[in-house]
Amino acid sequence: MALRWEHQLEILDQRDLPLTENWIAVQNPGDMVAAIRELAIRGAPLIGVGAALALAQSAMENYDRARLASEALALRAARPTAVNLMKAMDRLLAVLRAQVDQAAFLEAAFQIYHEDIELCAKIAAHGASLLAGKSQILTHCNTGGLATAGVGTALGIIRALHRQSPCTVYVDETRPLLQGARLTAYELLKDGIPALLICDNMAGALMRAGKIESVIVGADRIARNGDFANKTGTYNLAVLARYHNIPFIVAAPETTLDLECPEGGAIPIEERSATEVRGIHSGNYHLQWSPDMAVYNPAFDATPAELVTFLVLDSGVYSTDDLLSGRLSQIR
Amino acid sequence: MALRWEHQLEILDQRDLPLTENWIAVQNPGDMVAAIRELAIRGAPLIGVGAALALAQSAMENYDRARLASEALALRAARPTAVNLMKAMDRLLAVLRAQVDQAAFLEAAFQIYHEDIELCAKIAAHGASLLAGKSQILTHCNTGGLATAGVGTALGIIRALHRQSPCTVYVDETRPLLQGARLTAYELLKDGIPALLICDNMAGALMRAGKIESVIVGADRIARNGDFANKTGTYNLAVLARYHNIPFIVAAPETTLDLECPEGGAIPIEERSATEVRGIHSGNYHLQWSPDMAVYNPAFDATPAELVTFLVLDSGVYSTDDLLSGRLSQIR
Repeated sequence: MALRWEHQLEILDQRDLPLTENWIAVQNPGDMVAAIRELAIRGAPLIGVGAALALAQSAMENYDRARLASEALALRAARPTAVNLMKAMDRLLAVLRAQVDQAAFLEAAFQIYHEDIELCAKIAAHGASLLAGKSQILTHCNTGGLATAGVGTALGIIRALHRQSPCTVYVDETRPLLQGARLTAYELLKDGIPALLICDNMAGALMRAGKIESVIVGADRIARNGDFANKTGTYNLAVLARYHNIPFIVAAPETTLDLECPEGGAIPIEERSATEVRGIHSGNYHLQWSPDMAVYNPAFDATPAELVTFLVLDSGVYSTDDLLSGRLSQIR
Repeated sequence: MALRWEHQLEILDQRDLPLTENWIAVQNPGDMVAAIRELAIRGAPLIGVGAALALAQSAMENYDRARLASEALALRAARPTAVNLMKAMDRLLAVLRAQVDQAAFLEAAFQIYHEDIELCAKIAAHGASLLAGKSQILTHCNTGGLATAGVGTALGIIRALHRQSPCTVYVDETRPLLQGARLTAYELLKDGIPALLICDNMAGALMRAGKIESVIVGADRIARNGDFANKTGTYNLAVLARYHNIPFIVAAPETTLDLECPEGGAIPIEERSATEVRGIHSGNYHLQWSPDMAVYNPAFDATPAELVTFLVLDSGVYSTDDLLSGRLSQIR
């Protein structure tokens, strides 16, 4: 867990992991906005939960609906690609507009936290039964207990699968911010799940060698047609998996769905600083190894639905055909 | 140029580039073996040339054929994948067996150096006419004046193409040793060729966005059937290029051909230390960011001939059909 609330809300600074476990106090929603922007807290589901808890703390100190609404809007704008954050804030803005009392607002905020735990458990159960018998899994970025309030999305499935029968996990390091090498590696070691770290560019050779039975990734936003945005490098994996006839599984809570977004091309892709690619710049880690030169650094990429073998939501499993026939648009 | 000979043979330490230009004296063939093993000198053509010049220096000091033969065997074994090194040493071993005099041996050694310059020029000319009009190029690893004695192989083509009409080069950073981010970036900046650095995992999204007109890479060993080994990550690019119908070009001197090797699966792939993937470990750059965990770290991967759109050798251009119909086995 990368969030805790003892006397006040605190977050585990994910920029320093795995070599340092540093907890940061979140005094107010402004601190949370900064933590989200600077990636001290990350993971599409977790930033939605973190923002809700920051608002809850603010509401406990002083239940001023107008101030809370403006704080919710600032949180909502902290990162552009993940939709869970926007949905969590829209939900709490609607609660504020309904002029409920303090207790009802707090209940709504904490519900976002509890729901995320439950959604993860459901995703893990669906995914583990879908993939029963597979033991060689490749994953990208971090989609575990550091990215969610629960067991994780893609990594939650891997955990559940490993409980059924032992797995080996190939972990893409996930340049430039190395969420795989730092965060997924840290979680898998803590759990005692056998894991091998690889560079992102080695995935194809492993697939060709028959070492990968399934690729499982998370999602930051899923469009109505099943296209989805996720951490940069996800699209490479989707194409490689298709070429090698390996199932490519996307796991996310339904809060990641954006039914107003028609397709992947319409998802805004955040571009980040050139310094991230010119070296390593995260928390305690600072080193530049390339010259000062132009860089292309999209934090996410979009993958078309036709490359998704199965989408695992908490509400159930959707096949490629389900996605291509528009079944997501019938949800709710 | 990454080799020079003023009073004695010196090599530019490629582990420290681009931030430090550090020349190392090569006192004897043993120093060159160490430099090749530790990647102070690298690039399949250049290590063949460097080994030949180290033997020439040794022969100038004392022309003892038996000692030179044993030095040649030690150099030959310094790295297992690149075949140019083995061929260069086999050539000089044959010259020694022919019991020629010192002058003839030196001429044979220097010829390997001069030939490499000429081979690069021919490759560049063939490639630039093949790709005339293309201006958006993706390349991987380093295949330039730091990898060869001349203008380079893949990068030599890019240089010649840019002289015809301006190009933009997307440079894969090339984890784990970052030869793209450090070395190709350094060469392109020195030449004033517009370049954008990307993480290896971003190539697919760029192809999907229509930003890449051709991928050009080098080779460390080419089998008789056209399969080839090159820096890890090359196979990922070959699959991505095929999926997006983008020409995938391999450029190498004919000295890279190993006609005794039947196919890619028979090329020995060097596996390197886990520390390279757990962080950055090269020259001045030392930082670990992942936990101490298991790692898969092949230095190379093998790509099948069917994914090669064109192979550009100094002797000419070979299409996929040429490769698949066995035309390489008819060479010489």
